[in-house]
Amino acid sequence: MTDTMPNPTTLPAFAERHIGPDDAQVAQMLAVIGRSSLDDLTAVAVPDAIRATDAMGIVPADSESAVVEELRGLAARNRVLTSMIGLGYYGTLTPAVIQRNVLENPAWYTAYTPYQPEISQGRLEALLNFQTVVSDLTGLSTAGASLLDEATAAAEAMTLMRRSSKAAKDAVLVVDEAVFPQTLAVMRTRAVPLGIEVVVADLTGVTTGEALTEAAGGRDVFGVLVQYPDLHGRLRDHRALAEAAHGAGALVTAAADLMALTLATAPGEWGADIAVGTTQRFGVPMAFGGPHAGYMSVRSGLERTLPGRLVGVSVDVTGAPAYRLALQTREQHIRREKATSNICTAQVLLAVMASMYAVYHGPRGLRAIALRIHAHATTLAGALREGGVDVDSEPGFDTLSVSVPGRADEVVAAALAEGANLWRHDGDTVLLSLDETTDHDDLAKVCRAFGVSEPGRVTIEEPEWDGALLRTSDYLTHPVFTSHHSETAMLRYLRRLSDRDFALDRGMIPLGSCTMKLNATTEMLAITWPEFANLHPFAPLDQTEGIRHLIDELSQWLCDITGYDAVSLQPNAGSQGELSGLLAIAGYHRSQGDVERTVCLIPASAHGTNAASAVMAGMKVVVVKTAEITGNVDMDDLKAKVEQHRDQLAAIMVTYPSTHGVFEDTITDLCAMVHDAGGQVYVDGANLNALVGLAQPGRFGADVSHLNLHKTFCIPHGGGGPGVGPVACREHLAPFLPNHPLDAEAGPQTGVGPVSAAPYGSAGILPISWAYVRLMGASGLRRATEVAVLNANYVATRLRDHYPVLYSGEGGLVAHECILDVRPLTKETGVSVDDIAKRLVDYGFHAPTMSFPVAGTLMVEPTESEDKVELDRFCDAMIAIRAEIDAVGASGNAATSVLRGAPHTAQSLAGDWDVEYSRQDAAYPPGVDPLAKYWPPVRRIDGAYGDRHLVCSCPPPEAFED
Amino acid sequence: MTDTMPNPTTLPAFAERHIGPDDAQVAQMLAVIGRSSLDDLTAVAVPDAIRATDAMGIVPADSESAVVEELRGLAARNRVLTSMIGLGYYGTLTPAVIQRNVLENPAWYTAYTPYQPEISQGRLEALLNFQTVVSDLTGLSTAGASLLDEATAAAEAMTLMRRSSKAAKDAVLVVDEAVFPQTLAVMRTRAVPLGIEVVVADLTGVTTGEALTEAAGGRDVFGVLVQYPDLHGRLRDHRALAEAAHGAGALVTAAADLMALTLATAPGEWGADIAVGTTQRFGVPMAFGGPHAGYMSVRSGLERTLPGRLVGVSVDVTGAPAYRLALQTREQHIRREKATSNICTAQVLLAVMASMYAVYHGPRGLRAIALRIHAHATTLAGALREGGVDVDSEPGFDTLSVSVPGRADEVVAAALAEGANLWRHDGDTVLLSLDETTDHDDLAKVCRAFGVSEPGRVTIEEPEWDGALLRTSDYLTHPVFTSHHSETAMLRYLRRLSDRDFALDRGMIPLGSCTMKLNATTEMLAITWPEFANLHPFAPLDQTEGIRHLIDELSQWLCDITGYDAVSLQPNAGSQGELSGLLAIAGYHRSQGDVERTVCLIPASAHGTNAASAVMAGMKVVVVKTAEITGNVDMDDLKAKVEQHRDQLAAIMVTYPSTHGVFEDTITDLCAMVHDAGGQVYVDGANLNALVGLAQPGRFGADVSHLNLHKTFCIPHGGGGPGVGPVACREHLAPFLPNHPLDAEAGPQTGVGPVSAAPYGSAGILPISWAYVRLMGASGLRRATEVAVLNANYVATRLRDHYPVLYSGEGGLVAHECILDVRPLTKETGVSVDDIAKRLVDYGFHAPTMSFPVAGTLMVEPTESEDKVELDRFCDAMIAIRAEIDAVGASGNAATSVLRGAPHTAQSLAGDWDVEYSRQDAAYPPGVDPLAKYWPPVRRIDGAYGDRHLVCSCPPPEAFED
Repeated sequence: MTDTMPNPTTLPAFAERHIGPDDAQVAQMLAVIGRSSLDDLTAVAVPDAIRATDAMGIVPADSESAVVEELRGLAARNRVLTSMIGLGYYGTLTPAVIQRNVLENPAWYTAYTPYQPEISQGRLEALLNFQTVVSDLTGLSTAGASLLDEATAAAEAMTLMRRSSKAAKDAVLVVDEAVFPQTLAVMRTRAVPLGIEVVVADLTGVTTGEALTEAAGGRDVFGVLVQYPDLHGRLRDHRALAEAAHGAGALVTAAADLMALTLATAPGEWGADIAVGTTQRFGVPMAFGGPHAGYMSVRSGLERTLPGRLVGVSVDVTGAPAYRLALQTREQHIRREKATSNICTAQVLLAVMASMYAVYHGPRGLRAIALRIHAHATTLAGALREGGVDVDSEPGFDTLSVSVPGRADEVVAAALAEGANLWRHDGDTVLLSLDETTDHDDLAKVCRAFGVSEPGRVTIEEPEWDGALLRTSDYLTHPVFTSHHSETAMLRYLRRLSDRDFALDRGMIPLGSCTMKLNATTEMLAITWPEFANLHPFAPLDQTEGIRHLIDELSQWLCDITGYDAVSLQPNAGSQGELSGLLAIAGYHRSQGDVERTVCLIPASAHGTNAASAVMAGMKVVVVKTAEITGNVDMDDLKAKVEQHRDQLAAIMVTYPSTHGVFEDTITDLCAMVHDAGGQVYVDGANLNALVGLAQPGRFGADVSHLNLHKTFCIPHGGGGPGVGPVACREHLAPFLPNHPLDAEAGPQTGVGPVSAAPYGSAGILPISWAYVRLMGASGLRRATEVAVLNANYVATRLRDHYPVLYSGEGGLVAHECILDVRPLTKETGVSVDDIAKRLVDYGFHAPTMSFPVAGTLMVEPTESEDKVELDRFCDAMIAIRAEIDAVGASGNAATSVLRGAPHTAQSLAGDWDVEYSRQDAAYPPGVDPLAKYWPPVRRIDGAYGDRHLVCSCPPPEAFED
Repeated sequence: MTDTMPNPTTLPAFAERHIGPDDAQVAQMLAVIGRSSLDDLTAVAVPDAIRATDAMGIVPADSESAVVEELRGLAARNRVLTSMIGLGYYGTLTPAVIQRNVLENPAWYTAYTPYQPEISQGRLEALLNFQTVVSDLTGLSTAGASLLDEATAAAEAMTLMRRSSKAAKDAVLVVDEAVFPQTLAVMRTRAVPLGIEVVVADLTGVTTGEALTEAAGGRDVFGVLVQYPDLHGRLRDHRALAEAAHGAGALVTAAADLMALTLATAPGEWGADIAVGTTQRFGVPMAFGGPHAGYMSVRSGLERTLPGRLVGVSVDVTGAPAYRLALQTREQHIRREKATSNICTAQVLLAVMASMYAVYHGPRGLRAIALRIHAHATTLAGALREGGVDVDSEPGFDTLSVSVPGRADEVVAAALAEGANLWRHDGDTVLLSLDETTDHDDLAKVCRAFGVSEPGRVTIEEPEWDGALLRTSDYLTHPVFTSHHSETAMLRYLRRLSDRDFALDRGMIPLGSCTMKLNATTEMLAITWPEFANLHPFAPLDQTEGIRHLIDELSQWLCDITGYDAVSLQPNAGSQGELSGLLAIAGYHRSQGDVERTVCLIPASAHGTNAASAVMAGMKVVVVKTAEITGNVDMDDLKAKVEQHRDQLAAIMVTYPSTHGVFEDTITDLCAMVHDAGGQVYVDGANLNALVGLAQPGRFGADVSHLNLHKTFCIPHGGGGPGVGPVACREHLAPFLPNHPLDAEAGPQTGVGPVSAAPYGSAGILPISWAYVRLMGASGLRRATEVAVLNANYVATRLRDHYPVLYSGEGGLVAHECILDVRPLTKETGVSVDDIAKRLVDYGFHAPTMSFPVAGTLMVEPTESEDKVELDRFCDAMIAIRAEIDAVGASGNAATSVLRGAPHTAQSLAGDWDVEYSRQDAAYPPGVDPLAKYWPPVRRIDGAYGDRHLVCSCPPPEAFED
């Protein structure tokens, strides 16, 4: 024997912890399914044609302690200096109580998107706080529950302005030249395929419609975007500009810094229609670029056009206030190819952190922090000027623009020697931004770098700005922002909120397509180490060696796993990965002179984002039917569509295994058919959890895929974000992957431009996926896939007699998930998938995916992390619910049934009880352990009520009185 | 203004987070009390005679981020090498899921001792698991819920054997010479004042009564203690020795290594009556010596003599199984001067970690770890012998004794150069111990140090031991040890258990005398950093500079705060601090030739441990009365007692402010009176939270105090430990503080010997208190005290009309806590303090301290961390309960009242309801927020039932079936 633990499966030690069922349970489940081994199971389930025969070439797994040591070694290769680079990324102090009890607490980070609002009230309240912070500070009536980053938020604002403006079709977007370069670049990437023209102009002194037209090169204007304060740190009064734009039929967006807004007039107050930005400096570490919560808020009248998620207040059946996602019909999964945004995730975990930062500091605390930052900037500017240095003299908040003709490199180098990173704007200009972490020592460093005397003491004073710039309005007046300022109060508030929610730390979340598997603690450890957390994304290369090495390794491993040749980790959500993949296809066709190839075939069963992304990539969506009985892509229809669009065919976009949870054996034919017609094959990697170690999309015919690191590679869902959606492709598409204007290493020179603000997107959480692969090794990863398939088939087998399994493949087997058809039961009894989903809460479960991809069904994906005990608990609950449905069938009273009454709160037991079923049946159905009972805080929520009475900021406390 | 946040109170920023009430609330509360300012309040409350006039000379406070940076700097001054030192401290791998979700989770670490069992079921289950682990592995029927460390556990075994043996009064304890040196030293420290003689002998080959008597120098023997495996790593069959000892009327204790016991015959199986040891290597970091959970288990028949806490299974009023502390009547707070142990705390948090390590690995996993360790030891021994090195050839587990005549220093130095610490036993012998972290590289290092060839691959095999040594019995057969082996399952088990408990993260724990205040996150950060966590307590000085510097600074600050001249941080519980202080007094008197001074005066209201500690220090306790009306020490009685015992007077031991929560103005007279009679004044520091910054015991007349870092200095209570109880004294007592045989820096050469196993006790958690002082500074600490006094007086003022405040001082003011007298209400209505305590659970509170120091009362200590909102919530609940009591008074039905029915579970609402009050009144009394409702998992527990049917290991799962 070797120097390892005695282990019959010879799996890496960590794999045994990650994978739920042990050998004995695997054997039991195989027996139920009727397969002799995992090999036998996957041999039948996975078509021969696609099976990978050689092992993935990734490094052998190591133990948890060894991997942590290795990460420490990588961390040591990063050097954290004082960052004054700014450009949307600032030093910030994460309150320890928030770091420990949100970012490092599984009750928050393992939660799913709050689509089941009754069991998500805690994070929904936190998000409502977030919306209130953004809405209050920007002075705009409605804010969304976060976007991906400032640059993509600006791009979303661009399309929102286009949709909402009545300006001519060929009107342009005018962007002030003093916008952050990455923001401009992302807008350009997104504008090109949509045919939007972006004009960059110096909007200084543009105060009339004529001047605006002139700035736009004589073109009509649909939108104007300014940075506030701008790239050079200048804080300007944009009232006249806004008025001129509105006069010309254009909308105005401010990319605004929330910290500055605690002191400066809010965009909504000077006429902006939209505000976008990042909330990073509200306590979220820079993390080499992300993840952070981007934001968008809009003036009254635009709220129904907001992209992304919006939390609103509604009521439950008892009339109690209850939060839920509002206006869900706006979302791309409904509008599909008519969608105008493919945003389908948010940055919930980071939005929660930022909102809690505001809750902890309150309006006075935030203002004090801003005043302190401003005072340091003012003091530094004074000291520099005193020493004869030419500092831009316009009003500003935290950023100095320093003119050093011909000496910018020299000054930056001198500052580096002092331990500070400044920003070389050009050969003659240095920018530097101060932040919450800046102290007098930092000012002294800068002064030494410029060769001037150290400043005196820093005096905190009100800004000496023109009155038009000075904020006079209140903000954060809701009591939540003044009630939790002691650590004790904050800790309890976080606990109370998280206790309302159901996350992976309580039980299974069997969400088809969403792969809610273990986010192991060891994977999470490194992300809060300062060596990873405190890196600026534009810090010099030699300060970021460790994280870059990690990124390179992870990229290589993802290639090894998928069989592709290149990967970009930049997309910070699956949707952005999709867009990137499609842009790569478009770029490739363009490079081949195939400019007519713009048709994208998408099966009817596809994820809604697919179509939305295709539209955003400038493609025309053509839907391919699915065969009625098998649910597979209808190969005849495909053939017809390929023929019909042969010369325009850009791509087909399929999910594999399909969104129906089946390994379609036609996949290789499909690839061949599209390739023969000159199209490219895009395989959506949403279901990669069923492929890793068994099949490689890059080898079985696909040209490009996006992966979801938050599904297959253990990035926690965080209650609805962060997501990470890298795009991987074959060699011929690699030249068209994303790149970045500020980081030559972050993509090919020939790339399509950036799709995210930061060169490596959400780089700060990549250690999670890196650690997962490092801990699992090839054998562990493969075993995880096999057990994911096993678990899904076990559930399908146990439930098949109670709920028909809608689709299956060879041997009656499903892939890693299965669709339970509720439609016949609904027809017969009136009991809906909603009723089952809510009833599952009473049994102590998060519902499976509802009505996707087929309305009236439930899609179950158990993942490999759930053991047989938990699977049986779930199956037993589903079977018990089936008996409850049968009882409804017999009585005919769906409306008064325990199913329709679900979920039941503890409070409901205490009151009068005038329904047909007992309290015991309501709250303690069979199999519920009273010692492990989860209580939802509200009963079933009336979502429509809230949409009719839209309230998207914190309701007054009185609303919660009995 | 200066470079700080604008701040009207000019408090350090952290102090504003630590202290609950802000300026506005302070003003409101002062108005209610009728005082104009905090100064005005404390000027009246605190007697002039003791008020400190000069500021504490501690370093100015710094911000949280700066203090974390400073800690990182100290961490960097520690060097973590591979430790092979052994001697009871071993490298171990803390599963990350346990570190994050127990040690770093406030739901676990902020909990109080489970004296209110209904709201402590989670940690009680974890402790029952701990007891089961210890009981199973040692093969003895009953294990306690942890002791302080191995050495003190051995000392407790010594006294237990003395109590239980029928051997002659002058019989001796025989300790095998191959016991860990610190264990022997602590036993000696504890034996001397008790008059117990300890004989150290080589018990090799002692197999008959005669041989034992000979080893004992011809004396009778009451107990025998052997290390198993012993200091040299030898594993010996002690059957014959045990039989011989029993034949001689002696008991046998094995100081046993639990990891070895997974492979070796259990002590209970070879005849040991008692086993003691540490559970450190079950996943608890070495932490420079502690804290770790010590253990003790005993054979059937001895369970009622176990020192410390014992968790047992009982039932609640519905008959459901429920855990609670068993046989509480054994405890020192009841037995006082008749107590035979002063143990009143445990190491709960660490015991929980160790138990969860066993739960996570299970019996097969633990055995595999042990086999791996043993295989490494065997391989290393083989390689050394192959190279001609003389390794002891007796059977062993993990430790090698290597003979290197005259070359021990040289070898140790060579290993050091390789990055490993070995143990220099003497000039000719090196010991080295392997552990869970050992890998092949480590073996290679050792081989190079010895100049021999590297070993080959390590082969895992069963130990090649004599059959008598090989364990054949099962262990950890309870399902809990085989059900949570995946990380997902483990995470959920931890969450489920913690959800059952009420800790500070849910609400106030207003425990008089126990000071349950904020344990801030920033204070907790450093303790899990590897640079602090992975230091062996006997590592070379130059590897531990950082922690030693921290210890020195903290020691100095504690002197600055208390006004004493010297401090020892060694005592790892308040009880140990008490003993140390009294030993110092005894030592001082002895040094003055005053050998007759053995009387210790203790007021009737003292903490129970005081008397027990005095007895253990060899003193005779004389109780001083308390005056009936004021509750103060009866000065007349004191005068009389002092007169009566003038020549024998060793000390008086008083708590200040008194356990009655009052600043007695007679304290200076008291000190003078005792000093005049030649006695020393011991001020119990339990209530130091009312003194810091206002008065200094070392200046107002006291000679020595122990402090409770887990009360005043923010070490979390951890659910009932760790505690830290440093002893501080004036210069004349300093030569008699504890020291340590293995660390010359850890105390005076003239010291009384060690009172804890490790030189600095629970050194690993001292960064918490260090950070607290560093963050608060003198002004913050003083403000905390003022607000603690304010909060107590606010509660007293609000509740006085509803419950008489038993004692108060000048101006009707209390100190930092107040006693509410329930006796008249009980007499009138039959409602007891117990009823109120349990009813408070329904209202969402942990009960105040019950019936201490006065039976039939509740003692409330709100601490400075609770804000006015929480204090009002508590006062409102107490007032509402008073109304419920009045209703009982009117109806006369205490037995059927909502008070007697309390606490109410959620489950109880679901069932039939045949009591006089409504479900709503039971579960949602006025002021309970349904969204923040805490549900106890069981109803009122029948403790006596469990004591009659003693079950102290995990009950079968069937017990929990309905």
